[in-house]
Amino acid sequence: MAQQVLDETVKQAIKQFTEMDEKICHFTNILGLLGWDARTYAPKKGKPIFAKAKGTLSTETFKLSVSKEMGECLDTLSQPDVFEQLDSETRACVRERKKEYDKSKQIPSDVYNEYVILASNANDAWEEARAKDDFSHFQPYLEKMIDMKRRFAEYFGYEKHPYDALLDEFEPGLTVEKLDPLFCDLRKKSIELLNRIQQSPRKPRNDIFNQNYDVEKQKEFAQFIIGKLGYDLDAGRLDETTHPFAMGINTGDVRITTRYEPENPRMAVFGTIHETGHALYEQGVNSEYEGRVIRRGSSFGIHESQSRFLENFVGRTKEFWTYFYDDIKAHFPHQLSGVSLEEFYRAVNCVEPSLIRVEADELTYNLHIMLRYEIEKGLIAGDIEVKDLPKVWNDKMMDYLGVIPPSNRLGVLQDVHWSHGGVGYFPSYSLGNLYGAQILNKVLQELPDFYELIQNGEFMKIREWLRENVHQYGKLYTPAELIKKVTGEDLDAKYLTDYLEQKFTKLYDL
Amino acid sequence: MAQQVLDETVKQAIKQFTEMDEKICHFTNILGLLGWDARTYAPKKGKPIFAKAKGTLSTETFKLSVSKEMGECLDTLSQPDVFEQLDSETRACVRERKKEYDKSKQIPSDVYNEYVILASNANDAWEEARAKDDFSHFQPYLEKMIDMKRRFAEYFGYEKHPYDALLDEFEPGLTVEKLDPLFCDLRKKSIELLNRIQQSPRKPRNDIFNQNYDVEKQKEFAQFIIGKLGYDLDAGRLDETTHPFAMGINTGDVRITTRYEPENPRMAVFGTIHETGHALYEQGVNSEYEGRVIRRGSSFGIHESQSRFLENFVGRTKEFWTYFYDDIKAHFPHQLSGVSLEEFYRAVNCVEPSLIRVEADELTYNLHIMLRYEIEKGLIAGDIEVKDLPKVWNDKMMDYLGVIPPSNRLGVLQDVHWSHGGVGYFPSYSLGNLYGAQILNKVLQELPDFYELIQNGEFMKIREWLRENVHQYGKLYTPAELIKKVTGEDLDAKYLTDYLEQKFTKLYDL
Repeated sequence: MAQQVLDETVKQAIKQFTEMDEKICHFTNILGLLGWDARTYAPKKGKPIFAKAKGTLSTETFKLSVSKEMGECLDTLSQPDVFEQLDSETRACVRERKKEYDKSKQIPSDVYNEYVILASNANDAWEEARAKDDFSHFQPYLEKMIDMKRRFAEYFGYEKHPYDALLDEFEPGLTVEKLDPLFCDLRKKSIELLNRIQQSPRKPRNDIFNQNYDVEKQKEFAQFIIGKLGYDLDAGRLDETTHPFAMGINTGDVRITTRYEPENPRMAVFGTIHETGHALYEQGVNSEYEGRVIRRGSSFGIHESQSRFLENFVGRTKEFWTYFYDDIKAHFPHQLSGVSLEEFYRAVNCVEPSLIRVEADELTYNLHIMLRYEIEKGLIAGDIEVKDLPKVWNDKMMDYLGVIPPSNRLGVLQDVHWSHGGVGYFPSYSLGNLYGAQILNKVLQELPDFYELIQNGEFMKIREWLRENVHQYGKLYTPAELIKKVTGEDLDAKYLTDYLEQKFTKLYDL
Repeated sequence: MAQQVLDETVKQAIKQFTEMDEKICHFTNILGLLGWDARTYAPKKGKPIFAKAKGTLSTETFKLSVSKEMGECLDTLSQPDVFEQLDSETRACVRERKKEYDKSKQIPSDVYNEYVILASNANDAWEEARAKDDFSHFQPYLEKMIDMKRRFAEYFGYEKHPYDALLDEFEPGLTVEKLDPLFCDLRKKSIELLNRIQQSPRKPRNDIFNQNYDVEKQKEFAQFIIGKLGYDLDAGRLDETTHPFAMGINTGDVRITTRYEPENPRMAVFGTIHETGHALYEQGVNSEYEGRVIRRGSSFGIHESQSRFLENFVGRTKEFWTYFYDDIKAHFPHQLSGVSLEEFYRAVNCVEPSLIRVEADELTYNLHIMLRYEIEKGLIAGDIEVKDLPKVWNDKMMDYLGVIPPSNRLGVLQDVHWSHGGVGYFPSYSLGNLYGAQILNKVLQELPDFYELIQNGEFMKIREWLRENVHQYGKLYTPAELIKKVTGEDLDAKYLTDYLEQKFTKLYDL
């Protein structure tokens, strides 16, 4: 009888939880569309007015996720004996909502309000500081933000390093203890490889992309390429924005954007392929997860692994351009006249230390991330002070990349992330490369003809493998569970370092 | 002391009411954007999934508008002694929300659910019936819908005619008793004028628009024209849809759409001007009304008066085309070569009885509406049965327009409105013409150089007059109050009949 009563209570809690989960998902989907609209087609005078409406819906969504009813359901469903009885999807949903609930509850609401206002002001200050190349204008806001993030870390709690609490927001379960050796290995080997590349006499042609590439032709080519890669255009669309992004509103509506630069067609080509990688992930999640929190990607890092996989491990291969070279030449016959496939391939893989992260090549990109990781860790631990950042930044740039930014605008002020509180986000980018390379290793075992498939344009087979092994699961598994399930191992840096070593040794005749 | 207590209660009620009103408005604005997206850029596979998210937000919005808290606030604020104390904006908001609350409360929720399902099924049935040209497929659904609407009329209540209860949903305060004489007058004079026109030997050229007009050029011209008319492109945008519409998300974001037909450039030109008329209204509402229910137009009829004003009283004048003729010729030099301004002007004002309402000219359009009005009134009163509709329709087409549809698809099945329950909506279209002509009469008194302004392209002065006298007030006044305030008189059909008489007598040398 007692069991009977418990069962009824549990059933009721599951029903109520599922309804709340769905409602939050519906509101989140809507907020996603509003975000897409604000960045694409919204007329400028409407934006500040509409922001209030969006704020009302955000607040409503947040209130639901921390409501008394949600707390009660989560209490019931997360009791070990009950949790065990749940199906795996519901377990994952409870896990995700409980985490969100607990984190939100730990921050006093007055502190949270202060944070929201600070993030808005700090973002304005950063924009002005960057425009004026004046770090001192941003400094007091960043100091407050770092202080706030340190308080957040205390509220959230951590075992060893306060930065763990922040990392966990983007990569659940990740810690400094786990990340330090991965990144250390990657950093050392990347620097060493970079040094060898810089001494190589075999330089790619640098004149190929220094020409005008008609933007309308670039658009045509981008549309052509995404269809070939298996992006479902009936379940998405490609638009143009200054900062490209992918937005998964639901599995039938995953929109991407790109940027077209007349003097730099690589931006649109590889940016579009990158966002297509994100989009294939969201289009490929099990559609039965619609209306549940597990409908999203497993983590920022896993998401990035899918975009990097497509951009680098598919899009920057010789085989990819063997397949597409006639097409791109047909779009730009004048610009590519006299350029061999080999020259083109080498040019899109040119390694060169540079100042700006978002323009970095496949190898040096990770060094930009290492620098930011080290700085974030130091700021949160109290080992680095905000006022010293310009010097710390430039010193690390010299150490890792051998270049020194001539201005803070091209240095410490280049990224938006810290201004709106995104501390702990940067590692996701390199984690994406690490996860991606480890997944590639598995793909090569299971699809030994991987590079032939690319060369023959049979991208659907690659998409199907990723869908079957990664995409379909959405957030069912944590990132650590997922990488283990997919590859049979914990995350290991050797797959990426080996990949980079092989690729660039060959490319640069090292 | 009692007064003191009352004041506090009232203050509290105002505060709570204003917050709820704002929240409903915010959600309504968001629903507006979702509607725009669904009709413009949403990928097709996402639509059915996203419809659920939209449904969740609609339900939430509806629940708020009929919530216990809303009811209590409205009770407090609509007590006569309290209502008197409110400022005029709050009074209007209370009036509008109370009406919505009372109407919603009068329909039992199971009946309302039945209605929502019926509307969805009836709409599907209508689409199929129209595609197959098979009225009998739609008939049972329409019978249920009319029955449902008659029940609604009983729930809402009325003094004299049950149709009054339905009219009131679109044109607050309007009744059959008021409308019959207006429409009777308009119908008789229109038919009489049409007969004279048909006997006139002076026919416009009908070859001008029977040519191919490049769609890209049409787009350019549409963009050019809306800017000239005072549509603020920083607070809106023009897109393309099968069924054109204007969507006012907020005063800084009023989007319009149009349709481009290669063989019929009039569709895009006048359709765009029409929607611009709606948009100028929504862009011109007092921005202090943001977040309040009065931020919308006064009624469907008043809204339509603004679109018709711009489309017909501005856009179909000789002066308008005097100003724009060089521009349109520059866009279509080949098609308009050898076409004089006079010929062009007469061609855009060609009167010809036709089968399809949305393609009708300025004069016969109202006859299409009269027919629908008479039928709706008869259906709701029980004087006409659904099964007889094809015959009734065709008989009235013969009586009013002298043409008989060769099929129901081109007859009784042409409009979507009844299938989703929009009974009482059609009169708004002709009301728009009536209001518009009465407003035009006032404009001509206050801006005696009205036609010179048009001829000189000084559209901003016209927009300013409309903004000052009509647009800014939003829903502050009821339509009857507004027309009286603007013109000093109640609505009178003579302004429209006089206008039509004058215009077409001259055009057709009658």
